Amino acid sequence: MAKKIIGIDLGGTSIKFGILTADGEVQDKWSVATNILDEGEHIVPDIIEAINHRLELYKLDKSDFAGIGMGSPGSVNMGKATVTGAYNLNWKSTVEVGTLITAGTGIKFAIDNDANVAALGERWLGAGENNPDVVFITLGTGVGGGIVADGNLIHGVAGAGGEIGHIVVVPEGGFECTCGSKGCLETVASATGVVRVARQLAEEFAGDSGIKSAIDNGEAVSSKDIFIAAEAGDLFALKVVDKVSMYLGLACGNLGNTLNPDSIVIGGGVSAAGEFLRKQVENYFLKFTFPTVKKTTKIKLATLGNDAGIIGAASLARKFIEI
Amino acid sequence: MAKKIIGIDLGGTSIKFGILTADGEVQDKWSVATNILDEGEHIVPDIIEAINHRLELYKLDKSDFAGIGMGSPGSVNMGKATVTGAYNLNWKSTVEVGTLITAGTGIKFAIDNDANVAALGERWLGAGENNPDVVFITLGTGVGGGIVADGNLIHGVAGAGGEIGHIVVVPEGGFECTCGSKGCLETVASATGVVRVARQLAEEFAGDSGIKSAIDNGEAVSSKDIFIAAEAGDLFALKVVDKVSMYLGLACGNLGNTLNPDSIVIGGGVSAAGEFLRKQVENYFLKFTFPTVKKTTKIKLATLGNDAGIIGAASLARKFIEI
Repeated sequence: MAKKIIGIDLGGTSIKFGILTADGEVQDKWSVATNILDEGEHIVPDIIEAINHRLELYKLDKSDFAGIGMGSPGSVNMGKATVTGAYNLNWKSTVEVGTLITAGTGIKFAIDNDANVAALGERWLGAGENNPDVVFITLGTGVGGGIVADGNLIHGVAGAGGEIGHIVVVPEGGFECTCGSKGCLETVASATGVVRVARQLAEEFAGDSGIKSAIDNGEAVSSKDIFIAAEAGDLFALKVVDKVSMYLGLACGNLGNTLNPDSIVIGGGVSAAGEFLRKQVENYFLKFTFPTVKKTTKIKLATLGNDAGIIGAASLARKFIEI
Repeated sequence: MAKKIIGIDLGGTSIKFGILTADGEVQDKWSVATNILDEGEHIVPDIIEAINHRLELYKLDKSDFAGIGMGSPGSVNMGKATVTGAYNLNWKSTVEVGTLITAGTGIKFAIDNDANVAALGERWLGAGENNPDVVFITLGTGVGGGIVADGNLIHGVAGAGGEIGHIVVVPEGGFECTCGSKGCLETVASATGVVRVARQLAEEFAGDSGIKSAIDNGEAVSSKDIFIAAEAGDLFALKVVDKVSMYLGLACGNLGNTLNPDSIVIGGGVSAAGEFLRKQVENYFLKFTFPTVKKTTKIKLATLGNDAGIIGAASLARKFIEI
C-alpha cells in the first residue's frame, strides 16, 4: 500500500490535522483546541496523543505513514525542527517540536512556518496549479505570505523570505507597523488595515455614506462591513476599497516585476471579498507591471480555504516518500 | 588535467571572452568588437572564430574544456539556447546561438541573459561570497538585475524574473518608463534617471549650486557630475543623491522584505559613486525593512567590475563538468 502523509496546521486557537494520500487527497481531517496554558507545554503532547489516537481508531500503524509535516507560528528552524518565540502559543523559549513528535509517534517529521506552508498548499493543489513559480499572500488579522520560485520555498538567509506584509507601499507618511517600520502593506491591507484606511479617508469624504456615518458616530466597523457596503455601491466604501486595492496592486505588481511568477494567489479572511476585490487589485497590478509580467503573471483567489494549511504541511512530508 | 570553462559576455559594443578554471580563476581574457552590420549575422561566426583561434594559439583542444557559457542581451531561451529580439545586436529574429557555437567549436554551450549572468558572477566570486541568496542590481544606462534564491537564478514563468529596474518606486506621478509603465526604478536611478531627478528638483531649489546653474543654463550634466559635486558638498547635488538613494533604498528594502537575501549587491556605472552612494542607500534600506531583514541582509558594492559578465557566464558551464 502506498504510504500516506499527515499534515498539521498549528494555530493559536486550534490544531488542525489531515491524513492525505501522497497525491494530496484529504482522506480524513479533524481538529483539537489549542491548550496554551502552562506556557504551552500541553501542545506537543496533545498533538502526539491526537495522532496516535486517530491511528488506533482506524487501525493504522506508523509504518503506513511516510511522514508528518507541520506549519507553525513563530520562528521555525527547519533543520532542527524547532520553534522559537511563538507568542500566540505561549511558547517563550525554543521547543524541540520535531524530536518530540517523532519520539512520540515513531513517524518522521518536517516543519516550516505557517504562511509558507499555506503557500505550499495553494501552490500544490490550489490556485497555483502546481506551477513552480507561485506567490501566496494571505490577508487576515495580519498580512503574510510565501514565495515558491523555481519549485522551492524562498526562506532567505534568516527565514524572513516571503514576509510580504512588510513590503513598504507608503514610503512617506505611512501608518506605523508592529514591526517598527512605517507604511508596510499590513498597515493598510489587513483586516484592521482596511478600517485604518477608511478612518483616514473619512476625514476628507463629504458625500453620503452609511460606512462614513458609522465611523463618524464611533460605531464598530469591520473590513467585512466595508467590502459589503462597497459591493452595494456605497461611494465612500468604494473609495476605501479602491485605495486598498491600489496598495495591494502595487505590492503584487512589484512582486510580479521581481519574480514573474505564474500567479499571485490572494487568500485569507479579507479575500472573502472575492472577485470584487481581485478584479480591482488586478487593475492596479496591470498599471504597475511591465509588459511581459502583465501578459504572464496572473492574480488569482485562493481556492483551498482553511485546508491550505494541512495540505501544505502534509506536502512537507512528501520528501520522506521512498520512490 | 581538470577541464576549463569559457565565459562570453556578449554586448552591443564588444564581445568579452574569458578562459577560467573550474574554480573561477580567470586564466586569460580578451575581447573583440561587436560587428552588428548585416543584421548582426557576423556575430556568431566571429565568436566561433575568436574561440577557435585562441585555442590554436595556446595549443589547447576542445577536449580541454567542459563547456562555454554566455550572457546575452535580448530574450534568451535557455532550453533551446536561442536569443530573440536583441536589438542592440541588430538581431531581429531568433538566432540559434547554442547550436551554431557548439557546431563551430565542438564544445557544449549554455546561455542566460546578461543581467542574470552578471548576478551569477557577483554571487559566485564577487561581493555575494557564494551565498545561496544574493540579489544583484546594476545601475547603468538602464537598471537591471538578477536574483539568486536558494542557490538558483529566479527566471519566473516567462523569464522576466529579476527585472529590478521595473520595480515601481513612484506609484503616483512618476516619470514614464520605456516599458510603458510609470515610476519604475530605472526612471530615477539609471544614469539618465539621476539627471532626470536633478532636473525635477532644480525647479524648486533656490540655493547656490554649480550643478543647478549648469542645468538652468542648459549645459550637459551627467550622473557622474552630480555624484562628484555631491561628494564635494554641493547642496543641490546632495539633495539629488538623497532622493535617488531613497528610491534605491525603497527598492532594496522591498527586495529584502520579500527575499531576505544575504546581500543586495549594487554594480554598474552609477555604482562608481562607491561607498558614498552605498551608505546612503543603506540608510534608507534600514528605514524600509523590518527587524530580521535589517539585521541579516547587507547592502554591498559589486567587486568584479566588468569581469562579472565573463565569470558569471563561465559559471553557467560548470554544470558540464563531470565529477
